[in-house]
Amino acid sequence: MSFDAVGKRIPRVEGPEKVTGAAQYVADLKLPGMLVGKVLRSPYPHARILRIDTSKAAGVPGVKAVITAEDTPKIRWGAFIKDLYPLAVGKVRYVGDEVAAVAATTEDAAREALGLIEVEYEPLPAILIPQDAVKEGAILIHDDIPGNLVLDKLIHRGDVDEGFRQADVVVEGNFKSPLQYHAWIEPIGSIARWSPTGKLLLYMNTQTLFMARQRIAYALGIGIGDVRIIQPHVGAGFGGKSCDDNNAIVCSLLAKRAGRPVKLINAREDEFLASRPRVPSNIFMRLGFTRDGHVIAKETDVLNDNGAYSAKAPATTRVTALRHDIMYRHVNVRTRVRLAYTNNIPTGAFRGFGNPAGHWAVESLMDMAAVELGIDPAELRLINGVERGDVTVHGNIVRSCALKECVRRAVDLSDWNRKKADKVPHRGIGLATMVHVSGRRHFGDFDGASAIVKVNEDGKVFIMSGEGDTGQGAFTVFCQIAAEELGVPVSDVSISAGDTDMTTFCQGNYASRLTYIGGNAVRRAAAACKRQILEQAAQMLMASPEALRIKDGKVYIEGSPEKFVTVGQAAWARLYRRGGEPIVGFGAFDPPSEMQDQDLVGNESGAYTFGCQIAEVEVDPETGKVDVVNFVAVNDAGQVINPTLAEGQQEGALGQGIGWSLTEGLVFEDGQPMNPNFHEYKLPVAQDMPRLKTDFVGDPEPTGPFGAKGLGEPGMVPTGPAIANAVFDAVGVRIDTLPLSAEKVYRALQAKAQRKRSRAKGG
Amino acid sequence: MSFDAVGKRIPRVEGPEKVTGAAQYVADLKLPGMLVGKVLRSPYPHARILRIDTSKAAGVPGVKAVITAEDTPKIRWGAFIKDLYPLAVGKVRYVGDEVAAVAATTEDAAREALGLIEVEYEPLPAILIPQDAVKEGAILIHDDIPGNLVLDKLIHRGDVDEGFRQADVVVEGNFKSPLQYHAWIEPIGSIARWSPTGKLLLYMNTQTLFMARQRIAYALGIGIGDVRIIQPHVGAGFGGKSCDDNNAIVCSLLAKRAGRPVKLINAREDEFLASRPRVPSNIFMRLGFTRDGHVIAKETDVLNDNGAYSAKAPATTRVTALRHDIMYRHVNVRTRVRLAYTNNIPTGAFRGFGNPAGHWAVESLMDMAAVELGIDPAELRLINGVERGDVTVHGNIVRSCALKECVRRAVDLSDWNRKKADKVPHRGIGLATMVHVSGRRHFGDFDGASAIVKVNEDGKVFIMSGEGDTGQGAFTVFCQIAAEELGVPVSDVSISAGDTDMTTFCQGNYASRLTYIGGNAVRRAAAACKRQILEQAAQMLMASPEALRIKDGKVYIEGSPEKFVTVGQAAWARLYRRGGEPIVGFGAFDPPSEMQDQDLVGNESGAYTFGCQIAEVEVDPETGKVDVVNFVAVNDAGQVINPTLAEGQQEGALGQGIGWSLTEGLVFEDGQPMNPNFHEYKLPVAQDMPRLKTDFVGDPEPTGPFGAKGLGEPGMVPTGPAIANAVFDAVGVRIDTLPLSAEKVYRALQAKAQRKRSRAKGG
Repeated sequence: MSFDAVGKRIPRVEGPEKVTGAAQYVADLKLPGMLVGKVLRSPYPHARILRIDTSKAAGVPGVKAVITAEDTPKIRWGAFIKDLYPLAVGKVRYVGDEVAAVAATTEDAAREALGLIEVEYEPLPAILIPQDAVKEGAILIHDDIPGNLVLDKLIHRGDVDEGFRQADVVVEGNFKSPLQYHAWIEPIGSIARWSPTGKLLLYMNTQTLFMARQRIAYALGIGIGDVRIIQPHVGAGFGGKSCDDNNAIVCSLLAKRAGRPVKLINAREDEFLASRPRVPSNIFMRLGFTRDGHVIAKETDVLNDNGAYSAKAPATTRVTALRHDIMYRHVNVRTRVRLAYTNNIPTGAFRGFGNPAGHWAVESLMDMAAVELGIDPAELRLINGVERGDVTVHGNIVRSCALKECVRRAVDLSDWNRKKADKVPHRGIGLATMVHVSGRRHFGDFDGASAIVKVNEDGKVFIMSGEGDTGQGAFTVFCQIAAEELGVPVSDVSISAGDTDMTTFCQGNYASRLTYIGGNAVRRAAAACKRQILEQAAQMLMASPEALRIKDGKVYIEGSPEKFVTVGQAAWARLYRRGGEPIVGFGAFDPPSEMQDQDLVGNESGAYTFGCQIAEVEVDPETGKVDVVNFVAVNDAGQVINPTLAEGQQEGALGQGIGWSLTEGLVFEDGQPMNPNFHEYKLPVAQDMPRLKTDFVGDPEPTGPFGAKGLGEPGMVPTGPAIANAVFDAVGVRIDTLPLSAEKVYRALQAKAQRKRSRAKGG
Repeated sequence: MSFDAVGKRIPRVEGPEKVTGAAQYVADLKLPGMLVGKVLRSPYPHARILRIDTSKAAGVPGVKAVITAEDTPKIRWGAFIKDLYPLAVGKVRYVGDEVAAVAATTEDAAREALGLIEVEYEPLPAILIPQDAVKEGAILIHDDIPGNLVLDKLIHRGDVDEGFRQADVVVEGNFKSPLQYHAWIEPIGSIARWSPTGKLLLYMNTQTLFMARQRIAYALGIGIGDVRIIQPHVGAGFGGKSCDDNNAIVCSLLAKRAGRPVKLINAREDEFLASRPRVPSNIFMRLGFTRDGHVIAKETDVLNDNGAYSAKAPATTRVTALRHDIMYRHVNVRTRVRLAYTNNIPTGAFRGFGNPAGHWAVESLMDMAAVELGIDPAELRLINGVERGDVTVHGNIVRSCALKECVRRAVDLSDWNRKKADKVPHRGIGLATMVHVSGRRHFGDFDGASAIVKVNEDGKVFIMSGEGDTGQGAFTVFCQIAAEELGVPVSDVSISAGDTDMTTFCQGNYASRLTYIGGNAVRRAAAACKRQILEQAAQMLMASPEALRIKDGKVYIEGSPEKFVTVGQAAWARLYRRGGEPIVGFGAFDPPSEMQDQDLVGNESGAYTFGCQIAEVEVDPETGKVDVVNFVAVNDAGQVINPTLAEGQQEGALGQGIGWSLTEGLVFEDGQPMNPNFHEYKLPVAQDMPRLKTDFVGDPEPTGPFGAKGLGEPGMVPTGPAIANAVFDAVGVRIDTLPLSAEKVYRALQAKAQRKRSRAKGG
């Protein structure tokens, strides 16, 4: 297909605002009379609150509100399980739990007041690992959740035991991955203002405006229509700004109490303590293969750490357990999936939504199996990979799929065969593949979006979308989609900020759904406008609407482009006439997916994406330090709408993937975070980035807008195993626990040398 | 008809914001880095600009921009005639003409800089009255407008000369009315901010957002889509905030030049000098009657003062000349209408849009005729008044009309017959009737509106309307209309601010069009939502949509209200389902009116309103001071949507009507305004207000929303002649020039006494 706007390297529409500093983020906004808010957090992982005395705090000059649970409606809320109070009631359950909050005219007064709130705690025994949480007789973190289990599910497809009996080669392992903080450039924050009639206006950097509206209204005990959320520019979300934490709710409660607007912006420490980082994962997995490399049995057992309250972890943990089953042609699958409360920070969504942890296990095992089977790892994926038209054991319908093309292209781009053949000491190359979704259905059997497009009387197009943009470029992609549908230059299209009052319902930024779902809604709204333009132009050109084409903003009879009316002329004529009206189109799209049933069967997404990554590493044998020197990432995201933005997604994702794989991970001792700051929590920096080749070999998705699928998350899904497989290729050690820190690799190398010495001695 | 929301005394939806001080007007808004703007105005009514030196001004610390015409695109713009530069080019044409402007970090710096701009003028002879402007050989105010005539038209229906030949009684007179300043509580103002990509954001207190967008874009030489206008709360418009003056354009030019946001708020003096006050009018009129009181000939000759630039005066002057012809069953009408440039302040739209001036003449003459004919003035209106179904000589189609009911009700409420019979010295009672429009078609053969209504997933309704509200209560009326259409409580409905990006095209607040036209658009959008609700509820209730009713937010099968689903449940179910979507409806309405043709024939409005006012006055014979002691106003506005707001419109209009009739009027000497301040420009205050009885006897308008018509302007259309007729009834003097100041009445009483003495002496 040939496109005019789609597939083009259009600069970001909001770029100039950002690079000139004109863009306003929530922290930049000022409302008249606005106060500064601050939150007092629990210093204990588990404790009873015996007494809170806020009187001294309230006496600090400039302090306008001090609130505790007693000042709140005490409603428990949450994305899937309603277990979280805005301010702790009776007990605190993790170090960071919100206990009280203040609003004051200055930051200093707020801080001083915070220090003067007296809280008397009775410390309780804490559960710090999920394995302890599920033990018989373990103390209960929430009285109403028996066994501390948020999720406990066993599913079985085919005959797994028989599969393993028939298997010629079986590989297995325990794979762990760490708690990763989103480390966005902009912390979570909000500004709340109540109108005299009780309507709450929130400026917040949420990535899911309408879901935030629903949850905040619920937690505050008010109606959805009583909340308006406006999204300013957002400095990234990655899943962690989807309103699972208490920031906006506490901010709203403070503003209500103070009777003035309140701004509550997380400090970095608030983020490390009380945002909703990536779920730390524990997976046992076993794969059985026939001699010729076909996988015929798979067993997975996941036990994840939910933390003290349940955000998105129940959903991400299901993904950890099952998503990867879509990638290969499995028949016999048995999966146990458990998620346990602990007295750790509540965990949630982070780019990949549990999928990187699952891939960490399966793609490590695939590599191990390749070694055992003597089959090239790339070849092993080609033997087992799904193809267009497949329906998986869990009911996933694969309408488009270029998994194998991704593998082949990655092999080419990485010079895989030559590098596998010409081994260089301490250098290795590793491959991993991935499957991901474009949207996922798990909120009330709806995963849709809607949009309004209007064409001004001068032909300029304006999109009103509630999806918002968190910096990934969704606005630009939507403008391109509308431009393509309408046949106008992208420069003639602009788009609104997200605003729950002024736009129509959208689920928001998660699950790589925006291009595919939000884009389809925009396309449909644009198509509705196009029909109106054609109807009008048809009268002007004395032709039937069906005979017309629009290109470069001109409407003409197909084949006769020299005689035309512009879109602007048609829009003007449609408005300024007897019975006239502006050109306005509404569009909605809910993908052809379905809710998983009780047995977790169901086509969770309308479109699946695939990819292959190949990492080339160099391991320092003296220190164990892993350097990723070359990296190839090939994705099947269907038709790519904007290659520059798509590459940007892969580049950013790779940074996060490398961090998760090599250096990151929040570490706790006795429930206390040991590295809640950027000094000790090691993010990769520019010098840690490899040379990257990225490419897209999309199979156009029939249900996608112009064939597009999602691509926000996939870029880090297979990164961990690709690097680990390369480390194994380099130095022959296989590490099952991310991150692959220098220390771990060093110890593994020492152990390997020790074994070698022992064997040498023994032999 | 029985209604649930319509016709109810619902408190204004934006009232709590306003009375608590939370409402933000444009002067309240602050943008980061915002500067203060100020304008340098011409001190001469007519002069050539020889030289402008801004160098000293630019050197004032804090000054960020000083601009003259040389810094502008020099594009002439205007509502009907493009004759106005944002900053004067070459010549100034009135005292107040914009010459230069500055933007500075402080008000003081801006003021200081203004004083340092050196302008060398060569004064030119000035034309100060329209009679001089149209004289043979008069100097030209605009080189390209020959004869200084903006408008010169002669129209003729029937045979007027024959009509006057057959007339038994002929009355005639010259009727003048003054230049009236809107005297709103909030002056004109704007804040302009340019984005790095060249998009202009304007916060401005305009009453016509989309027309302002079009004009400002034109004047700045940019696209319509490059301008976004947001309407904050507005402290009234009355026609004078419909973007006919340079405020927002100069503000935008300053912001562009400074590269920072600029706020430009008129001082009161700016308003008196350079807003667009009511056109001062000169009308000669003659009416011929048969002995039994039928009017059979009418001649009108209007010569109005346009001022130096042409805003809305061409349109209001046509109204002055012709609108009143709709009120009586005229056959023979001859009208000459002229509008001349002068070197006075440009004049424009003010409540009634030229219609009060026309009524001033015709309703004075009707009273004079009643005396001559010996027919009661009320009876004379009943003899001649139009009725439902009439089509006038100008093609006006009267679909609904309760003119005669208004007269009868006003007669009852005022105790007219008794008061006419029992004459009290120096007390008098006078009556006048009126006709007005609900919207008027004069912009590109379109007078429509559009709106989007959405129903949140909790059933709360939100209206996105671009009409805006200038304080008259349009938002409340729209909420009532949507509530009535949808069958939900008004408290479940809220509405957006006006915003040209986020709402769809509307013509805005003028010509009493909002309830009738904007209301119809809202109703249609709500009806579209209702269809979606019924469709969904039908599935839930297992019934056909046609069988359902909605009341109090509940949907049920007609006749079985006990079994229901709520609108919220239906909205939730429609969204959260496979293929779901939110409830969103678009509606547009363009009334069944037509543009007047070259001969000014055409049904200018979709619906006409009628009214009768009766004033009772007491005249102080010592001073001539007129006190209006009792007042009755009865209006036919069709079905009244909100009686409280309707009464408020009548009350406010009466204040302005009394001011125009008795005390107001901007006075000039040699082109210089003599009373440009509230000390010398006398507004009526609370103690000047009479006891008012107001009532509505609406004939439901078949094309109106629930039968409604407009009622914003009518309340002051017949006030002047009602009072003047009462003065005549009180003391026997007839004054033809408004205002009826104590001085004028005193002099007339003196002259009358002199005549009496002369007659007594002579006799």
